[in-house]
Amino acid sequence: MLGLMMQTPLLLSSILTHAARSFPDVEIISRTLDRPDHVTNYAGLLRRSSQVANALTALGVKQGDRVATLAWNGYRHLELYYGISCIGAVCHTVNPRLFVEQIVYIINHAEDRIVFFDLSFVDLVKTLMPKCPSVEKWIYLGEAADAKTAGAGDFPSYEELLTGRSDLYAWPLLDENTACGLCYTSGTTGNPKGVLYAHRSAVLHSFAAALPDACRISLNDTVAFISPMFHAMSWGMPYCAPAMGSKLVMPGQKVDGESLHRLFEEHGVTFANGVPTVWLGYVQYLQSAGVRPTTLNRVLIGGTACPSSLMEALQDDYGVEVLHVWGMTETSPVATISKALPKHKTQSKSERRDRQLKQGRAVFGVEIGIRDGDNNELPHDGKAFGDLVIRGPWIARSYYKMPESERADGWFFTGDVATIDEEGYMQITDRSKDVIKSGGEWISSIELENLAMAHPEISEAAVIGVKHPKWDERPLVVAVRRKGSKLTPAELLAFYDGKIAKWWMPDDVLFVDELPHGATGKLLKTKLRELYGDHVLPTIEHAKTG
Amino acid sequence: MLGLMMQTPLLLSSILTHAARSFPDVEIISRTLDRPDHVTNYAGLLRRSSQVANALTALGVKQGDRVATLAWNGYRHLELYYGISCIGAVCHTVNPRLFVEQIVYIINHAEDRIVFFDLSFVDLVKTLMPKCPSVEKWIYLGEAADAKTAGAGDFPSYEELLTGRSDLYAWPLLDENTACGLCYTSGTTGNPKGVLYAHRSAVLHSFAAALPDACRISLNDTVAFISPMFHAMSWGMPYCAPAMGSKLVMPGQKVDGESLHRLFEEHGVTFANGVPTVWLGYVQYLQSAGVRPTTLNRVLIGGTACPSSLMEALQDDYGVEVLHVWGMTETSPVATISKALPKHKTQSKSERRDRQLKQGRAVFGVEIGIRDGDNNELPHDGKAFGDLVIRGPWIARSYYKMPESERADGWFFTGDVATIDEEGYMQITDRSKDVIKSGGEWISSIELENLAMAHPEISEAAVIGVKHPKWDERPLVVAVRRKGSKLTPAELLAFYDGKIAKWWMPDDVLFVDELPHGATGKLLKTKLRELYGDHVLPTIEHAKTG
Ligand SMILES: Nc1ncnc2c1ncn2[C@@H]1O[C@H](COP(=O)(O)O)[C@@H](O)[C@H]1O
Repeated sequence: MLGLMMQTPLLLSSILTHAARSFPDVEIISRTLDRPDHVTNYAGLLRRSSQVANALTALGVKQGDRVATLAWNGYRHLELYYGISCIGAVCHTVNPRLFVEQIVYIINHAEDRIVFFDLSFVDLVKTLMPKCPSVEKWIYLGEAADAKTAGAGDFPSYEELLTGRSDLYAWPLLDENTACGLCYTSGTTGNPKGVLYAHRSAVLHSFAAALPDACRISLNDTVAFISPMFHAMSWGMPYCAPAMGSKLVMPGQKVDGESLHRLFEEHGVTFANGVPTVWLGYVQYLQSAGVRPTTLNRVLIGGTACPSSLMEALQDDYGVEVLHVWGMTETSPVATISKALPKHKTQSKSERRDRQLKQGRAVFGVEIGIRDGDNNELPHDGKAFGDLVIRGPWIARSYYKMPESERADGWFFTGDVATIDEEGYMQITDRSKDVIKSGGEWISSIELENLAMAHPEISEAAVIGVKHPKWDERPLVVAVRRKGSKLTPAELLAFYDGKIAKWWMPDDVLFVDELPHGATGKLLKTKLRELYGDHVLPTIEHAKTG
Repeated sequence: MLGLMMQTPLLLSSILTHAARSFPDVEIISRTLDRPDHVTNYAGLLRRSSQVANALTALGVKQGDRVATLAWNGYRHLELYYGISCIGAVCHTVNPRLFVEQIVYIINHAEDRIVFFDLSFVDLVKTLMPKCPSVEKWIYLGEAADAKTAGAGDFPSYEELLTGRSDLYAWPLLDENTACGLCYTSGTTGNPKGVLYAHRSAVLHSFAAALPDACRISLNDTVAFISPMFHAMSWGMPYCAPAMGSKLVMPGQKVDGESLHRLFEEHGVTFANGVPTVWLGYVQYLQSAGVRPTTLNRVLIGGTACPSSLMEALQDDYGVEVLHVWGMTETSPVATISKALPKHKTQSKSERRDRQLKQGRAVFGVEIGIRDGDNNELPHDGKAFGDLVIRGPWIARSYYKMPESERADGWFFTGDVATIDEEGYMQITDRSKDVIKSGGEWISSIELENLAMAHPEISEAAVIGVKHPKWDERPLVVAVRRKGSKLTPAELLAFYDGKIAKWWMPDDVLFVDELPHGATGKLLKTKLRELYGDHVLPTIEHAKTG
């Protein structure tokens, strides 16, 4: 028997109209490169998104059509988020930091009909145009007058497109499972794969992310989207924060430490999201300039593990709480958050810190597990590690145009390797493909990296598996020393002594000038394997002769 | 085009299993009349609810069957909530405070197959049994040994029913729109009407109620359900609080001020819900005993308007924040909450207090409006008042077995009359049927009542419309004076002078010893109209002679 409650669909247009109705005068601030900060509010967002919707409709955009963006975080991008999705079209946020061939692949695979781009990408767009036949229109995010200075003279402008359009739109009552957004993951191997978000998943994720034990987003917050809007929809914040009525702040292109500090202080930012690299830059700036945040009270950090030094600096030196989150493009992305339980109050500071460095517990709505190589469930004892799996209403079921990627058992295999402890705290120990398989057992490359990075003379380190005739793979450390350091490989290895099982001891250390990073700032292990995978380990001779 | 996210249904079994997995050792405390407090935890709740599910299945209960409860707030009631609903049956919470004929009507209308009852209702059950032919089994919530003392010897006991049952159950993957709960509203006229909640609506309501700007329910909270579990599912808290991992406290039968204070202090309660009457008793106890709450930090107050003296006592004297909420059985019930906006920070205390006394703004997910007699939308200017309408995914679409109650326009007409101000704060000014229709215009009976109650010598007051040959209806005040008061009708009327429009001035005042109240403590206006509707107003003679 079915209940008799209203079948109101969960739609992004409800967020847009709720924000405009309940928080009309709450501000939306966008930093620009060359003009004073742009200021609008939720009433304005609704009006302009409606104009976008009317313009797209006039251009013949239909439900299900893909409309792309190549843009930084700013008000026009936000208008496109809502204007495109709320008419039932799909807002495809393209990551401009990818290699050109990947961007071409993505746009062609998505069959985008229109691409909206920031003027800083005009050269990129000129390169893309001849290679992307599905795109009918390339429109730059600016006014007619901007074209001259930026060499975009041949393109139509967004502001011209909106001029004269009605700022009312009767949003369709879509099926809540209608696709709203598309974001490709820059898998380190193979072609990028598209995650197709739905209105339902985006709204449910907004509820979950805002909860008191997740990001606790409130109308008292000023939320800055630092994570790019082309990466997992800035972690869902452009949906969540308007639903809660927070004031919004968008940084544009500049997210160096100084720019962030100024932005936060000028606009009273209380909450912001971003990868560790961003926060490292921020903390370095605070330290070197001798300034302190006065309004920021917490940051959401994810994308890669939060280093403990960063956590300490933010929390202990600056009183900014770290919400350590794990997620991925496929998980909308908020999936686990590291937060203490009441019973932890009596624990020592270092116990609390160690736990906070784990990636945390599943937020209400999603379920996680770990599996061994044969897909058996592993115990949640904090020791067993295996493939991390997840399921829930904001987790991807399959990739766009890859129906074969859907699993019959209903779980998503994350590609991460993790432990889960008795209290449900998950800790990433590796990526499945980075785990080092030595003599049939797994060695966590990440654990070895973290230890190396804990050495005071190491600024960055990576550990990869290198072929070994006897053990299949053995760990190799590739590391960057701090300026002036004379550390030797033997000294670094000695540093591992007593901290790991004997058979985890890396077989060699290479010091290099820098490590390769991908578009989203992550270490490129594939590249490292390309460069150093054939390195001949000193232990091979041993194995031969020994 | 549909998105490619998982179609995980929103089910109460996900709340139950999430709580058991993520918060296994978080306590659930139940006060009993004659035994020490009962203590279990979420792992225990899952085990016992699974036993309930196995027992019901063994009794032949199928999806869609109605299984009723006649019970106070306690662990067994909570086990039934989950055990019944999670197998796809419907948990029908019967309000034992209704008149016997109403209870009979409700059980027969619902066609309940089983009724679980607390031992304090054994006499009531004996009265009901011969009149409720659909009920196959009446089972008391106790152990075999309880029967003797309580005169329930002829009935099977709940504990016997569970003994030996497996504490594992493979919860079915139901359609999320499956009915989970049934609660009848004791309308003051006509037969009670059944609201049939769905798993989807209950889960969405849990998300919304827990949000930082709603009840901000967290794993750091100890939540006491004071509002009865037979009244709008204790305002959804038995679903919301376990989802968030709060510690739970249930008061059993006793909710007088002293019992509440002890309960809260013994178990560290931080949050509790209840009608104003309950909080008045609580505050009176605190005052007379000269004690203070040490852990309670906020209370959710609704059901009727929160009196300003109560709000002041709780907030100013005891530092307990009042979350003034409006809702009804049909709205799951949390719909609006009165919370200040950041821009109100600079306002005076009395401005803030006045606003807090309004019923508040729509929580994210629901939409409200006001309509005039011709169903036209009225402006949100804080002055226009009309029928309050609402819609959203946790609002009732129609009543059980009353398909004709579904409206084509998709709105639910609440039966309340309200204003909505420019900032979205809604204020109930009356019930539609209590509004006094004088000369084609509406007079708010509640406003006149509040004014009367603001008089220092009045302890309670009601205002009803009384027939008038010229004006159709005119207001009559029926009031109870404080002990020892010699206040005259003329003096009370003089007190209105200057506070209301001239034509709102009541035509007469009657002082009585007490006013009639219904089962849930609300003033019975129907009864009042029955008693005093034919009162001959002194102004009628005027009308005739004048
Ligand atoms: N807090 C975190 N700690 C460690 N790795 C993380 C964390 N958050 C995200 N990741 C990694 O980032 C991946 C998702 O990347 P992306 O889809 O680009 O957001 C995950 O599969 C993890 O490997």
